[in-house]
Amino acid sequence: MEAGGPAVVSQWDECFQAAVQVAQRAGQVIRKAFTEEKHVSTKTSAADLVTETDCLVEHLIISELRKQFPSHRFISEEATAAGAKCELTSSPTWVIDPIDGTCNFVHGFPNVAVSIGFAVHQELEFGVVHHCMEERLYMARRGRGAFCNTQRLCASRETDLSKALILTEIGSKRDPATLKLLLSNMEQLLLAKAHGVRVIGSSTLALCHLAAGAADAYYQFGLHCWDLAAATVIIREAGGIVMDTTGGPLNLMARRVVAAGTQKMATLIAQALQPISCGQDDQA
Amino acid sequence: MEAGGPAVVSQWDECFQAAVQVAQRAGQVIRKAFTEEKHVSTKTSAADLVTETDCLVEHLIISELRKQFPSHRFISEEATAAGAKCELTSSPTWVIDPIDGTCNFVHGFPNVAVSIGFAVHQELEFGVVHHCMEERLYMARRGRGAFCNTQRLCASRETDLSKALILTEIGSKRDPATLKLLLSNMEQLLLAKAHGVRVIGSSTLALCHLAAGAADAYYQFGLHCWDLAAATVIIREAGGIVMDTTGGPLNLMARRVVAAGTQKMATLIAQALQPISCGQDDQA
Repeated sequence: MEAGGPAVVSQWDECFQAAVQVAQRAGQVIRKAFTEEKHVSTKTSAADLVTETDCLVEHLIISELRKQFPSHRFISEEATAAGAKCELTSSPTWVIDPIDGTCNFVHGFPNVAVSIGFAVHQELEFGVVHHCMEERLYMARRGRGAFCNTQRLCASRETDLSKALILTEIGSKRDPATLKLLLSNMEQLLLAKAHGVRVIGSSTLALCHLAAGAADAYYQFGLHCWDLAAATVIIREAGGIVMDTTGGPLNLMARRVVAAGTQKMATLIAQALQPISCGQDDQA
Repeated sequence: MEAGGPAVVSQWDECFQAAVQVAQRAGQVIRKAFTEEKHVSTKTSAADLVTETDCLVEHLIISELRKQFPSHRFISEEATAAGAKCELTSSPTWVIDPIDGTCNFVHGFPNVAVSIGFAVHQELEFGVVHHCMEERLYMARRGRGAFCNTQRLCASRETDLSKALILTEIGSKRDPATLKLLLSNMEQLLLAKAHGVRVIGSSTLALCHLAAGAADAYYQFGLHCWDLAAATVIIREAGGIVMDTTGGPLNLMARRVVAAGTQKMATLIAQALQPISCGQDDQA
């Protein structure tokens, strides 16, 4: 690093630029397919959907990135569904959800995003989330701040649960016992007089709303590492907290998360939740 | 009406044009206030919020319309909260929500709308809903179709509950008994294997999503006539159904609604719901 020299180029700048470009291209494909007829299949449950576009877009993203970075590893939603191992090693690893909000996509409900996270030595380096229908690009690199397009993001400073707007997702695990716990968690937060609970159908976009300060907390059991990887960097760089529902550090593979603008809010939410067991992404 | 003459001008065209113009002006005011600090007060519960902007925008809308149509009557959210009578007579009546989604507005969560409905002889003639943050204008006149900006809207044709995306709202009535029923209704629909349930924090915008075919059904107990009036015309003109939760005809003042793209879907939703008693707008 030379004084007076050009701006420091981080080791992963080239990867970040590639992520931005491929997320935008993927967004174009999704936007075009949005109004067309979809061929829908189910995966783990009747509510766990996949379309041809999910697979097409995942292929587009991974083939492009693999061409540029042939030694890197990839974890992605549809490859995992097809049996690929979901393991975060110390190698540079891309964690990809080609369409977050597939159920929304199927119905033409406009909360749909591409999510691309990148980790090295199991540490998240950057995240890019493209809100396809509103052409908003959320992005963050570790240590460099979080942005939506050109606007810097700043998470909420709220610490009072009775003034909180809380985001969550219902997810695709729909057995009666899971639903009971899921609705009971919502009930606890409403009884604690939270201003409101919102369910928009995309974990990634909900987490980006949190990063933008448009909500005070997010929690979910049953999400996957590809829902979480990119948005986690974005929230942290916006000054927010992403942690395990036990209150401990986030485990990207543990399929559970509490995020908030402040540590106090995250802790209050975590304390109010009953755990829902959903297994681990890396032990499937 | 002369053959070969100019296009027929409906009796309420001038009112419709005025509604479009004032909804757009109101949207500008809301958009400007969106990122500014808000002064928030509560009304019927800790979750029933009002800001200076709600009152300012309501005044802007009503004073403008009253100037143009001095003999008309007005029903509006903040005037009713301040004690005005909420009564639908046979006179031309404007039914106005200056900011639908006030809790979203307070938090900077971008689902916020202006809703202006118009009824004569207790029949809804037109509705205009302005999604302030996305500059989308939903509008419909009785017998003339429904539109979002220039695009014609068409409600979903889905009749299978297990393929439905369902929208609802939690509302501001938060006593434990109401919450139990509210979450139990959600549970019933999820146990019936609906694809998903979404809660976006604006009844009016959720109903517009339904009109656009982006969801298959909507239900709510506890909403008000001003949440419903404009969107009801928009859904009906998009080919959808708006009815009472009992399965009977809609009563705009009854604070409950089921809406769907098809009669069959509306009936399935209505049958799955346990009623929640919220009183009547015209008996407050």
